[in-house]
Amino acid sequence: MLKISKRGQEMPASPIRKLVPYAEAAKKKGIKVYHLNIGQPDIETPPSILDAVKNCNIKVLEYSHSAGNESYRKKLVTYYAKNGIDITSTDIIITTGGSEAILFGFMACLDAGDEVIIPEPFYANYNGFAIQADVVVKPIVSSIENGFALPPIEEFEKAITPKTRAIVVCNPNNPTGYLYSSAEMETLKKIVLKHNLFLFADEAYREFCYEGTHTSAMHLEGVEENVVLMDTISKRYSACGGRIGAFITKNKSVLDAAMKFAQARLSPPFYAQVLGEAAIDLPDNYFDTTKTEYKLRRDTIVKRLNNIPGVFCPNPGGAFYAMASLPIDDCDRFCQWLLEDFNHAGATVMLAPATGFYSTPGLGKKEVRLAYVLNVDSINKAMDCLEEALKVYPGRVV
Amino acid sequence: MLKISKRGQEMPASPIRKLVPYAEAAKKKGIKVYHLNIGQPDIETPPSILDAVKNCNIKVLEYSHSAGNESYRKKLVTYYAKNGIDITSTDIIITTGGSEAILFGFMACLDAGDEVIIPEPFYANYNGFAIQADVVVKPIVSSIENGFALPPIEEFEKAITPKTRAIVVCNPNNPTGYLYSSAEMETLKKIVLKHNLFLFADEAYREFCYEGTHTSAMHLEGVEENVVLMDTISKRYSACGGRIGAFITKNKSVLDAAMKFAQARLSPPFYAQVLGEAAIDLPDNYFDTTKTEYKLRRDTIVKRLNNIPGVFCPNPGGAFYAMASLPIDDCDRFCQWLLEDFNHAGATVMLAPATGFYSTPGLGKKEVRLAYVLNVDSINKAMDCLEEALKVYPGRVV
Repeated sequence: MLKISKRGQEMPASPIRKLVPYAEAAKKKGIKVYHLNIGQPDIETPPSILDAVKNCNIKVLEYSHSAGNESYRKKLVTYYAKNGIDITSTDIIITTGGSEAILFGFMACLDAGDEVIIPEPFYANYNGFAIQADVVVKPIVSSIENGFALPPIEEFEKAITPKTRAIVVCNPNNPTGYLYSSAEMETLKKIVLKHNLFLFADEAYREFCYEGTHTSAMHLEGVEENVVLMDTISKRYSACGGRIGAFITKNKSVLDAAMKFAQARLSPPFYAQVLGEAAIDLPDNYFDTTKTEYKLRRDTIVKRLNNIPGVFCPNPGGAFYAMASLPIDDCDRFCQWLLEDFNHAGATVMLAPATGFYSTPGLGKKEVRLAYVLNVDSINKAMDCLEEALKVYPGRVV
Repeated sequence: MLKISKRGQEMPASPIRKLVPYAEAAKKKGIKVYHLNIGQPDIETPPSILDAVKNCNIKVLEYSHSAGNESYRKKLVTYYAKNGIDITSTDIIITTGGSEAILFGFMACLDAGDEVIIPEPFYANYNGFAIQADVVVKPIVSSIENGFALPPIEEFEKAITPKTRAIVVCNPNNPTGYLYSSAEMETLKKIVLKHNLFLFADEAYREFCYEGTHTSAMHLEGVEENVVLMDTISKRYSACGGRIGAFITKNKSVLDAAMKFAQARLSPPFYAQVLGEAAIDLPDNYFDTTKTEYKLRRDTIVKRLNNIPGVFCPNPGGAFYAMASLPIDDCDRFCQWLLEDFNHAGATVMLAPATGFYSTPGLGKKEVRLAYVLNVDSINKAMDCLEEALKVYPGRVV
């Protein structure tokens, strides 16, 4: 009997997607399901960038450069400059989504057994890339009580061992929506300098900040060799299906190493590079409308959540996620029950159990992540469902 | 000082792309460079499949299913059925190029330190994926003297250790162009059954067979649990830049494990899936013209090569590559010299040094790979260059 690999066994199933069969069953029963479980925005992709693909006249769909089309990389420099990030086109490798940028970072900087510190809860797929790179994730807990702020510097110091090689910071954060302050980013800078660590920065939600401003890891002075930016256009332009991201660093050795991984997979996808390049020409106020819409949704969902007895939801400063603690026994059981055994006037809501975002067993059992990727009306209806559900859920606790 | 990972250091640079700077310098000097170094076909992508992308009307560029669009997977079943491969849509995961299919196979089936046997010379990027998966490639030599046929079964037996978990077969072969016979595929079947191994089959060039017929690993009976097919539309439809491939197996455990890796990277690129789906509707005779053209090129290049004194090129049965041994001291030096120090009437030729396709140090030093991806006229001009070059190359040996 042929066995799969140990890492294939250890690889976690997606916490966001594992309840999909229950949602499908609910829909077959005629129940309307409000999807707040997944970060797939309903915002329309800007028509002008979709048109760039439609108007693309090629005769041969050739490989791109392994680092991505040069014309795109050059234009990206202007995008980053507008965000106060000073790079050149040779600091960039275009990747197949932010996912590949994360994988390249782990592969180029970390070896088997090396440790990477990540404040938890964190984006669940970091676990998957860590398993592929045979890297050990060392979580340090950020707690819902103080809105998932950066844990104190002592917690980092406690977690650091001789094997620690990197810290991952996702800012604004998925799944918590937390926006790290400039002071917190400076704290991270101090830690990586003191302990000679890489700082992997996932800034997929850079534009979506509702309180204060965004401090990029690339804004920090004196850590140019430490910082690797893992970026993506997926959320920025509602272009998740394109699969275009970027791996950016001023550390030449790291870039050269990542480039060899990039060469092995030949090139990033062509069409979405055309789309990404067109996106740089969107007017400067493009994000205003989207941000206004997301802020309205955030205000709606946070208010509704905190109005439900026993529910607490800190106000997230960015991204389009909120984490809430609920008066329940177990979020996995609750989220499944919502789909299997509950409906309110023919509708229910799909949430992401928070356990999948924690790496420490047992944490997050009373929390759920809500992606506010539906319009305000749908959010209100989804909150009606949640409110009613919490009244009748058999596993309700105080 | 921050260090990159050991695997980042060990990762080989692409043997196909490492001479690019010399080619660019030659072009700057006004020298025409005939590119026979890379498998980028000049064949036009079928206009109807490019149009499918142009006519694609979407409002939101959403994530696909992690296994790829169901409509595409269902149509692919009909493509494979035409090729005598009997699968269902649930046996398929659409991947980001054949590259990702190889990576998923290594990750899902092999652990750190496991060994995979590959007849060499082999597609150089297998090395890159092996390093990412921390897997050891055990080469067994196929030799140019007998046209790179499958090494005898005893060679496999000698290479097999308790750590051996898989054999990779690329058929028709890149870089040799060798087309494995049905008998050779049956030999591989016996070995994998006897030693309980996976058989990873890279069949990117399935349609391009000029002598005899193609035997897919999926045609073999009784090894359904062992076979993992790693496929791509890149060469088939001259669609390299799309980055769409497929991971196919009837082994449910392997597919489930691969699916977790697929979920971690969310989804394959959207647009090229649309293109791939449209390709299934191409007329059955679509490949006839392309095949006729490649066969003419093969006949031309093989004849020209064997007419040059001291050169030997076995007749490749498939793909669009030929391997030739040359009367030279060192192929890396020669290929660089062709670009740096030589031109014939203002032109030169770029070849891939064969050393990059061997994993055993010292092998392939007198061999080069030629990709016949240019038209017959260009091939003849390139061969004129090679013929003249071999007359004057300072490192010529008998």
